[in-house]
Parts: sequence; C-alpha cells; structure tokens
Amino acid sequence: MMNYPERILMGPGPSSVSQRVLRALGAPTMGHLDPRYIELMDETCALMRRVYQTDNPLTFPVSATGMAGMECVATNLLEPGDEAIVCVNGVFGGRMADVMERCGATVHRLEADWGRVFSDEEVAGVVQKHPKAKLLGIVHAETSTGAHQPIEGVSRIVHEAGMLLLVDAVTSLGGHPVKVDEWEIDAIYSGTQKCLSCPPGLSPVSFSPRAVEVIEGRKSKPQSWYLDVTMLKDYYLGKGKRAYHHTAPVNMVYALREALEIVLEEGLEERFARHEAQHRRLRAGLGRLGIDYIPEHSLHTLNCVRIPEGADDAAVRGRLLEDYNIEIGAGLGPFAGKAWRIGLMGHAATQANVDLLLAALVECLE
Amino acid sequence: MMNYPERILMGPGPSSVSQRVLRALGAPTMGHLDPRYIELMDETCALMRRVYQTDNPLTFPVSATGMAGMECVATNLLEPGDEAIVCVNGVFGGRMADVMERCGATVHRLEADWGRVFSDEEVAGVVQKHPKAKLLGIVHAETSTGAHQPIEGVSRIVHEAGMLLLVDAVTSLGGHPVKVDEWEIDAIYSGTQKCLSCPPGLSPVSFSPRAVEVIEGRKSKPQSWYLDVTMLKDYYLGKGKRAYHHTAPVNMVYALREALEIVLEEGLEERFARHEAQHRRLRAGLGRLGIDYIPEHSLHTLNCVRIPEGADDAAVRGRLLEDYNIEIGAGLGPFAGKAWRIGLMGHAATQANVDLLLAALVECLE
Repeated sequence: MMNYPERILMGPGPSSVSQRVLRALGAPTMGHLDPRYIELMDETCALMRRVYQTDNPLTFPVSATGMAGMECVATNLLEPGDEAIVCVNGVFGGRMADVMERCGATVHRLEADWGRVFSDEEVAGVVQKHPKAKLLGIVHAETSTGAHQPIEGVSRIVHEAGMLLLVDAVTSLGGHPVKVDEWEIDAIYSGTQKCLSCPPGLSPVSFSPRAVEVIEGRKSKPQSWYLDVTMLKDYYLGKGKRAYHHTAPVNMVYALREALEIVLEEGLEERFARHEAQHRRLRAGLGRLGIDYIPEHSLHTLNCVRIPEGADDAAVRGRLLEDYNIEIGAGLGPFAGKAWRIGLMGHAATQANVDLLLAALVECLE
Repeated sequence: MMNYPERILMGPGPSSVSQRVLRALGAPTMGHLDPRYIELMDETCALMRRVYQTDNPLTFPVSATGMAGMECVATNLLEPGDEAIVCVNGVFGGRMADVMERCGATVHRLEADWGRVFSDEEVAGVVQKHPKAKLLGIVHAETSTGAHQPIEGVSRIVHEAGMLLLVDAVTSLGGHPVKVDEWEIDAIYSGTQKCLSCPPGLSPVSFSPRAVEVIEGRKSKPQSWYLDVTMLKDYYLGKGKRAYHHTAPVNMVYALREALEIVLEEGLEERFARHEAQHRRLRAGLGRLGIDYIPEHSLHTLNCVRIPEGADDAAVRGRLLEDYNIEIGAGLGPFAGKAWRIGLMGHAATQANVDLLLAALVECLE
C-alpha cells in the first residue's frame, strides 16, 4: 500500500473527507442494477432532496464531477438557436457561458468585476435587454473570488420575465443555505468534494417540474448522450424496473450517501452556523495578520484574501503544504499571484484547522 | 455503517473488486493539484499505457464512466458535417452511432446480426461505399452479445482508406489482448469496472498522434467542455505546472492505479491466459448442463448463453442473487429473456467462482 499523505484540505476543494465516508467508499462493490443498490441509490436521492431543500423528483447525482453537472443542466435545457443570459463575475460564470455556447446557444454575458456580486437592478436590466432568453445562469458561490451572490431577488426578476433560473451551487451546498424550492431555482448543480466532504467524482443536480417540462418539449436530442436527462430519469425515477443507461459509479454513491447522512445528522442550520463561526474566527485571525478579504460579500466556505505585501505566493503555499500538511488555493485569472483562497468546507471547517492554519501562516510570513 | 452485501459479480460489469483496490480507494483524499497527487496521476497514466500496449502520450482516465469515454473520443474527433462509419452488431455499436450523430456527424451504419462479428470484406465494402468518412468505429468486445471482433484486418482497411480507427474496448481491456500501437488504433476507450476490477467511475482513453493532429486541426470547439481534450491535455501532459481544468476524482484514480498495478504484477499474458482458462472451464460446465453459447466468436470475459428451454429468466437470476450471492446479467434488446450474460472479468475470473456458479445453476435449473 502506498503512503498517501493525510493533508488538511483548506483549498477551494476537495475538502478533507471523514473516515466514515472513506470507509463507505471502500465497501464491497455491488452491481448497478442490484435491488439493494437501487434502494441505496433511492435513499441517496432522497437525502439529496433534503440537503437541497426541494421536493423535485428529478434530483440525482450526475456520474462525473461538478463541471459535468454544469454541462448536464446546460445541455438538457438549451437547444441550438436558444438565447441565454449568464452573469459572469469570475471563472465559473465564464465557464458556464462557454459551456452554453458549445450547446449552440447565443449567450448574453452580464459582466461584473471579479469579487463583486450582481444587484437586482443589474439583473433586471439585462433581462429587459434580452427578453427572448430562455434562461439566466448565475453562480451562487463563486469559487474563484469567494463572492456570495444573493439569489432570491434574482429569482423573482427572472421568473417575472418568464425565464428559467439556473444556479451553480458547487461551493455553497452543505455550507450555506441553498433553498431550491423556496428560491424557485429551476436547475442547480453542485459537487461532492466541497461542503459535503465526499471525494470528488459526482455532481448532485436537481431540476424543477418547470425545467422538466421544457426538457420534455425539446425539438432535438440533448447533444450529450451521457448527460441526457430524458434517459437518465428512467434509471433514477423508473417505476419498478430501472432501465440501464450507464454503469453508475457505485462506490462513489456509497460515499455520497454517507456524506449526506452526516450533513443531516449535524442538521442543516447547525452546519451553516458552524461554517459561519469558523469563517469569523478565520477572518479575525487574518485581520490580526493584516490580511484583507477581497469580496465585500464573502462566502463563509471560501475565503478569498489579498496576499500580503512582500509575501512570496508560491513559496508560502509550498511551505504550508510541505511543512504543515495544509493545502490552500492559489488565485485564478486576474487574481493569480494576488489572492489566496482558503476553504472552510464541511469536515475541514473546524476550529482546530483554523487555528493550525493561522499559526502556520504566522511562521510562513515571518 | 450499512451492511453492504459481498456479491460475487459475474454479470456484464462491474466485476468483483479486490480488497487491495478497495483499500486504495478509501485512502485519504488529496488535492488534485497536490504535487504528490500529480505524481500519482502520472504513474497511473504510465501504467495505463502499458496495459493498452501503447506509447501514446495522450493516454489518461476520463473523469466519468466508460460511456463518457465513448463520448470523449467522439466529441473530440468529430465536427458537425463530418461523416463517420459505425459497425453495429449490438447495443454498444448502436450507442456509438447515436453519440456520433449527437456530435453533428452523418453516420453510416454497417449492420450485422447480434452475436456476429464483421468480416474484413464487409468492412472493406462499407469503407469503399463511404470514402469521405473521417473515421470508422467498431466494438472490440460487444458486451451485449459476447462477440469478440478481430481488429487487425479492419485496421489495415480503414487506414488504407485514410480514415481513423476508433475502438470500444470496454469489456476487453485487461482480459483480452488490446494492442493499441501494433493494431494502429487511433482512439480507444474502456471502463475501469470490467477486466481491470476497479469500481466504476473512470474511463481509460488513448489517442494516437494522428488523432491528436486531427483534434488540433479542428475548426470548432468540441461540443463538450468537460471532455475537451485540447484543455484536458494541459492537466494530464502539461510541462511543469498543470493547468486546472476540473477537479479530478482523486480517490477513483488511487483505485485505478492500484488495479493497474495488480494487472501488471500478474502479467498481461498470464492474465489473458487465466481469462481463457476460466472461460473454457465455464463453457465445458455449461455444456454439461446443455447450455449453448450464442456468438460463434465468443469473448472469454463475457459469456452470452442461451437460456435453456423452460427456465424462468428473472426467477433464476433472482435466486442466484438472493440465495447464492452471485450476480449474472440479463439479455438486452433482442436477447432480452433469451440470453444470460456471464462475466468472467479480472478479479472475478477464478476457478472457485466458475465452480460456484455451475453448482448454483444446477440447483436453480432443477
């Protein structure tokens, strides 16, 4: 057996995974059509609905990582010739626009500076400007900037214009409230490796009945066979016999089921409060070191901070990893060399980890 | 901890996974940009090249199951307006044609009865009929019929016509010889959960330098962002710093690395011989029960047999699973209710499993 280092994962994801989830991951593999597995998969989807706070029947784990979840919602909802609006204030909004263009859609970008969030007024403006758009896509938790986008106002505006609302919740699900039904989100995706603290490999998605109606009314097949929800639903929601589509990643689903159980045992509100408390502790500690946050509306789960004057970005991150076994993330795009991204996600969002990181940073910045 | 049943997996996949691979799967999660993980991933790709018998630099695990590997090779090699030929003699050839049509290609199908393989003459005929096709796709190991397609003659014909050769090796890699370089295969995909005996979740793919050239000369972006090889290669093959694309399924790659190590420790030739020996043992035993094989050219790894007169398909499979803990597969498409598919793959291809299944079948067919 190789020697796998036990890192403290405080970067933009993956986050540290508990022993309980790792043990579930390593349980004996079953067949993907085994009645016992189907039962376990149904349980997993039910747990997922509770964490997403939704009754949407079409809620399941895409058999690939978070970005495939993004591609899944885009490829099922959009057809060539459709118009879409995407709010871009970081890497993941930009990526969403790219993915939608590859679906043959005309994408209208609403841009904002990195680190900023969008106001209701800005969203109202772009919706008015492109009334024929089928949907508006927005990132709830922008992993590249740490900005925390309010969704409720946006949702009202988008639905008044008769559009669908598509939300990226990769870095918020399990760490911040994500209320799919209350916020009337039509399509949403996340990753397992962030605040759910399951290894990377699956993408929990959910579609509203309104979104399902749009998919059922398509004129063309979704361009991706692998992500085609019209076929996937016969496996995830089939009555009685489940239709084989692809071989489900059985062991990853074991791990996700266990991770979701842990989230709900802790309690959603308690879990959000823990993320907030550790964010405050980290923020206070960084403040004492003279380190500022970049976004005004910061996520609790992803802390994007300015690299202090005189500090060597790569050297500090390298030393944190090598000497302290702590991973933090580099800046992306315009933030490369200027920002560090410190994750406080799920199993890793503990007081001990915050204190260890702060102590290590003091030494690395001396 | 849930009680996960320990099945003997002798269906069309997944196959049984060894404790060694399950332990690797459950090792502590690292970051996907951690230098130690990059090293491990490079080792995994190197092992994959040895199992595929290729020097192709672009050999890596797609971060999703086998069918995403099919979609990966199709979406990268084909552009809207291209022509492609697909040989269809079962579910997976048909699926390949569907996937390619969704890429915007015009697909010419060469059809054969289920269970048959294609002769060189048939392939020469279709290639002559559609000289403008960019590639020909064929299934080496048709999981739905158990037919074992020879590739060498097909390869010569396809390359003489100036086309690329695309091969589905989902059910052969690790159980039958798959000689990517010697057979001049341009693009190939497989799954982890068959003869490699790793849980489902990754798809090993390999592209020849000729295929890479075609991809680099594309006029349009591949329609899938997630599977876009032009970006993925900066992560898998980048010199020095690796560019972030998506979060790799870290633990699944641990498991695949371990599974490939096991394959190479056994030795490719020894492993193929073991699959053949167990196939022969099974075939002889089934013969004694009066059970025939459907395909003339049968795979060793997937044994597609006629359900004997008077036997109740679902009842027998149900009893095998419930009373003997053995999974075998049902027939698909025209073979539904008529065939059983018995896998002898990787860790599950043992004399003990063959003997247990035969003993159980005797009781279930009484």
